[in-house]
Amino acid sequence: MLFSLGNKSNMDPTLINFKVLYVLTQLCGLTMIVLVGTWIGQHFGGLGGTDNPKQEFNWHPLFMTIGFIYLYGNSILIYRGFRTTRKKTLKLTHAGIHMAAFVLTVIALKTVFDSHNLVDPPIPNMYSLHSWLGLSAVIIFCLQYVAGFMAFLVPGMRENYKIALMPLHIYFGLFGFVLAIASAVMGLTEKAIFAIPNYSTLPAAGVLANIIGVLYVVFGALVVYLATEPSYKRKAIPEDTALLSANGTE
Amino acid sequence: MLFSLGNKSNMDPTLINFKVLYVLTQLCGLTMIVLVGTWIGQHFGGLGGTDNPKQEFNWHPLFMTIGFIYLYGNSILIYRGFRTTRKKTLKLTHAGIHMAAFVLTVIALKTVFDSHNLVDPPIPNMYSLHSWLGLSAVIIFCLQYVAGFMAFLVPGMRENYKIALMPLHIYFGLFGFVLAIASAVMGLTEKAIFAIPNYSTLPAAGVLANIIGVLYVVFGALVVYLATEPSYKRKAIPEDTALLSANGTE
Repeated sequence: MLFSLGNKSNMDPTLINFKVLYVLTQLCGLTMIVLVGTWIGQHFGGLGGTDNPKQEFNWHPLFMTIGFIYLYGNSILIYRGFRTTRKKTLKLTHAGIHMAAFVLTVIALKTVFDSHNLVDPPIPNMYSLHSWLGLSAVIIFCLQYVAGFMAFLVPGMRENYKIALMPLHIYFGLFGFVLAIASAVMGLTEKAIFAIPNYSTLPAAGVLANIIGVLYVVFGALVVYLATEPSYKRKAIPEDTALLSANGTE
Repeated sequence: MLFSLGNKSNMDPTLINFKVLYVLTQLCGLTMIVLVGTWIGQHFGGLGGTDNPKQEFNWHPLFMTIGFIYLYGNSILIYRGFRTTRKKTLKLTHAGIHMAAFVLTVIALKTVFDSHNLVDPPIPNMYSLHSWLGLSAVIIFCLQYVAGFMAFLVPGMRENYKIALMPLHIYFGLFGFVLAIASAVMGLTEKAIFAIPNYSTLPAAGVLANIIGVLYVVFGALVVYLATEPSYKRKAIPEDTALLSANGTE
């Protein structure tokens, strides 16, 4: 916005800012995933199957971080990050990345339920605020997926309904994403208290947990900024409307 | 946006939606404060002074909820909630409510440090992710206050700088607010794990903690929605510009 001098997308200095922040977002997201992998690998015994519920739990933070934070955020950014790709392709990619995020999230949920149910004595499920808010985020995500699919991907929805629904789709999409991050920092807090001996003296595992939490927040702040700053909004390209006049279903 | 039919602010059906949601936000915020009071009063022995660090701690969630969540959120909403009041008065009220929020937040910080330092053995400070993110939110809030005060309240800042700074002031204001809420749900998680026996069986204190956390999130979601929905934006009134032409410092 500050440096918006022209409309040519490849000349617009605003988009240089966008690109720098977009690269930073990816670096932040990938670092976050690597550090979660390091955290569970170095300090909690790595990944395991149903015969080892404590290690099976470790899929939960890993797949939630990859699916419900990194892919969710990137799916939101796809329109602005790949602005010269035609709209239809972007919509399908948006739905596709969200589907991948959903699959990883479901596996991440299964492993945490297993890790509670398969130990002796079992740990109760769904008691913590983390579980209440985290599952709410997953439910919002699913409702958004169904509503978005019906409204914007299946042909036939009237244009004025699409226009009316879009601000809600954006609002609840970002709300679910931010709620996922809030749930993630609560999850880190739980794991740190339950599983890091002397967390209060900040051993390596504790410092790493805190750094991962800070990266979640920075990643989330960057995604929300890039997705809401008006001057970064994708502008329609000729291919979008060409498709519209060709088959009238876009 | 959906029902924006006219420009007359007292006739616009959009503002009826705004008013309903604004009242709901206040109810949600006040309920949240009452429940925090109930929670610390019924389950953690109420409030105390430095001679009783465990009870002194209880000022922390109470004053953070009133100051760093409820007042912070309401200060953000003041422009849209009192849209017929002239701009200068709104700015001073915005700065005034934020100052009240800051004072309560400082007391809330003092009491938590006391509750760590005055027990035997002392509890380490600033080790948890809650403390890292919570203090970050307070620092962002303070930097925002100073920057906002210099840019928008002290006369003399050039108009084009004000216009350039406003989106950043709004973004970081909302970011600090959302980070405060994320820190609050982490704080609830910590307190629930440390101080509620058998939290996993969801006793009354645990259910109350979770309900308070859900209310924080709903309150935050409502504030962010009301503060960002374009159709709810305050429109300039004659008194704003009358002042501008009268003394030229606005």
